[in-house]
Amino acid sequence: MKICYLSGGVGGAKLLHGLYRLQPQADLVAVVNTGDDFWHWGLFVSPDIDTVIYTLADLVDPARGWGRANDTYALLGAMQQLGQPDWFMLGDRDVATHMVRTAALKAGMTLTAITDDLSRRFGVGCRILPMCDGPRRTEIETADGAVLPFQDWLVKAKAAPLVRRVAYRGDDVSTPAVAAAIEGCDVVVIGPSNPYVSILTMLSLQGLGDRIAAKPIVAVSPIVNGLAVKGPLAAMLRSIDALAPSAAAALGHYVGLRAAVVQHGDGVGIKAERILETDTVMKTTADRERLAAEVIELAGNVL
Amino acid sequence: MKICYLSGGVGGAKLLHGLYRLQPQADLVAVVNTGDDFWHWGLFVSPDIDTVIYTLADLVDPARGWGRANDTYALLGAMQQLGQPDWFMLGDRDVATHMVRTAALKAGMTLTAITDDLSRRFGVGCRILPMCDGPRRTEIETADGAVLPFQDWLVKAKAAPLVRRVAYRGDDVSTPAVAAAIEGCDVVVIGPSNPYVSILTMLSLQGLGDRIAAKPIVAVSPIVNGLAVKGPLAAMLRSIDALAPSAAAALGHYVGLRAAVVQHGDGVGIKAERILETDTVMKTTADRERLAAEVIELAGNVL
Repeated sequence: MKICYLSGGVGGAKLLHGLYRLQPQADLVAVVNTGDDFWHWGLFVSPDIDTVIYTLADLVDPARGWGRANDTYALLGAMQQLGQPDWFMLGDRDVATHMVRTAALKAGMTLTAITDDLSRRFGVGCRILPMCDGPRRTEIETADGAVLPFQDWLVKAKAAPLVRRVAYRGDDVSTPAVAAAIEGCDVVVIGPSNPYVSILTMLSLQGLGDRIAAKPIVAVSPIVNGLAVKGPLAAMLRSIDALAPSAAAALGHYVGLRAAVVQHGDGVGIKAERILETDTVMKTTADRERLAAEVIELAGNVL
Repeated sequence: MKICYLSGGVGGAKLLHGLYRLQPQADLVAVVNTGDDFWHWGLFVSPDIDTVIYTLADLVDPARGWGRANDTYALLGAMQQLGQPDWFMLGDRDVATHMVRTAALKAGMTLTAITDDLSRRFGVGCRILPMCDGPRRTEIETADGAVLPFQDWLVKAKAAPLVRRVAYRGDDVSTPAVAAAIEGCDVVVIGPSNPYVSILTMLSLQGLGDRIAAKPIVAVSPIVNGLAVKGPLAAMLRSIDALAPSAAAALGHYVGLRAAVVQHGDGVGIKAERILETDTVMKTTADRERLAAEVIELAGNVL
């Protein structure tokens, strides 16, 4: 069974890691959000792609779920001393990735080709595809009318300003590789990522929603017992759509679900042909593999 | 007494450090070789300027004389893992300097303005001037006919290929700031740097040699008892000019010297109005201050 997996950062990467450990590598492609990408210190940073690569390469910081394990921050300290912005934590080892990506971008390579190259260098065997090659940026419109680039809101402003609306700006064209990955798959699995700032970002691209809608879709809830496992989703559901945080509220953003995977007790109000209630919190690699196995089995049953 | 000091890297920076500790900051300007500058990892690296800034800021690695003290190499290790060139040792803290310089260059600032800014951020009080703002590059022609950019020869090839000739390529225009520094000084002090790849590089710039020749010049020998204190000068004297390494051979590249400062016993054959034989090896800060005091006294006497 060929899986096309849609992923944001930390949560999405964890389930992808489980699938990666169980699936033949040729039968798994991840399409990853790049709406959070930004320039920092003259480097092009692609946070979700790096989180996915580091996670699959077993190099990710296990406590945070992003950045490299055992990284150090000597460069950040020196940048601080030189009066440079220090609100985004780039580790010394992590910076190497951004430097290689930035140099390749400046040499004219596409983000898709660069991601293939980085995946190979990090020994990641399945295809990881940026959702697009062009600039497509997530912007946060806050309750007081300000419009912030995503990282400025999430990291610099610590996700404190209430979000009124999320907007996607810039080139809305995806890539032939993403189109081929969706068309060539048997099932689209939407990972437990934030709909507003990860998944809908991808679905906002020309033709991508239609291509996905033509496939069986299995979605995994990023909300567990009314709380976001990580990140600002619970507050966003309230402030953007006046919804109490629930799996149904989160997955309500996706239409035509063949199946939904939610925490025990979270199935109420879910619109999907099949609902699997299970334990969706992934603390260990075994948790990831177990949930991935359930998703693969469910997907096989609903095709 | 206003001193305009000509400096290459490590040796030149040491005597400059002594002068810096004794002279009023407004009475000392350093003009620094930029013929070694190069791009590496997408960063613009200006080795001699950084050596001078780190030395004056008391941040330089004391054992090597270049790079930052107590620096770490996590980024270099990660670059290695990603298959990037690892022959030039850039420390994690050091990279911050190159990132700030590179971003400023790309924003259109001149190297002169960037160096002023970095000096200020590192708390260096005297003016440090790049010899020029444009690209002016030292190239090494080896005995087997190859032409190598300076760092490729010195660091990548470990200075092993015999040097037949040193060439200076690119824009030979200096800056108004350098012209003003020379014209406004009472004496030009040529530090104990390599003539071929530090000082003559500067003198090859349009008008710079003439401006310097109009001033009293005091030169300090980079050769001590027939040996280069550091670096490839002794071998270069042999292979380029068929000269046995000596203070006279090294300082013979400069004409019209008002005074020369050499090691005890090294005065033979020196062409200068006055010769001071003293201890020119600087192991400690006290050595630097003592030699600097002797240079200042000598300069005062020969004006």
